[in-house]
Amino acid sequence: MFVVVVYDTLAERNPKILKTCRQYLHWVQRSVFQGELSAAQHRSFTEAVKGVIDLEYDSVLIYRMQTHHAVQTETIGQEFSSGSPVL
Amino acid sequence: MFVVVVYDTLAERNPKILKTCRQYLHWVQRSVFQGELSAAQHRSFTEAVKGVIDLEYDSVLIYRMQTHHAVQTETIGQEFSSGSPVL
Repeated sequence: MFVVVVYDTLAERNPKILKTCRQYLHWVQRSVFQGELSAAQHRSFTEAVKGVIDLEYDSVLIYRMQTHHAVQTETIGQEFSSGSPVL
Repeated sequence: MFVVVVYDTLAERNPKILKTCRQYLHWVQRSVFQGELSAAQHRSFTEAVKGVIDLEYDSVLIYRMQTHHAVQTETIGQEFSSGSPVL
């Protein structure tokens, strides 16, 4: 499956969620990651996310599509790259 | 089409991009909106976005799908609602 993840976590937990997302996905924009996951990886990822966020305070939004062909991406303004600083 | 929009703009421009997104879409999470747009609305929305952001600094990411049936959404942690404060 193709997933897009957007997180909104307290600043002090950003490094942990960032690290977790990086283990499974590619960085797209500040607090946005995307990539292909198998069903097993998706389960593992969501479990890992639950372990690093505060479920009472933080929010992680996951959009799942069968394939990346199901979605078209466009960027208005700055395109981020792997060389950009992660905030 | 069904669109998901994530913006990353300088704080001073947040109110403008927020207002523009609200005119076309539903708020989902801090800096994330989604909703159904016609092709004409999509063109109008992207033009409006270009008018309120700084193209040299800000970034607005738009994911387009043919229908909302093409995507499944899940939230880990806090679900935002229309009653939540928009930061």
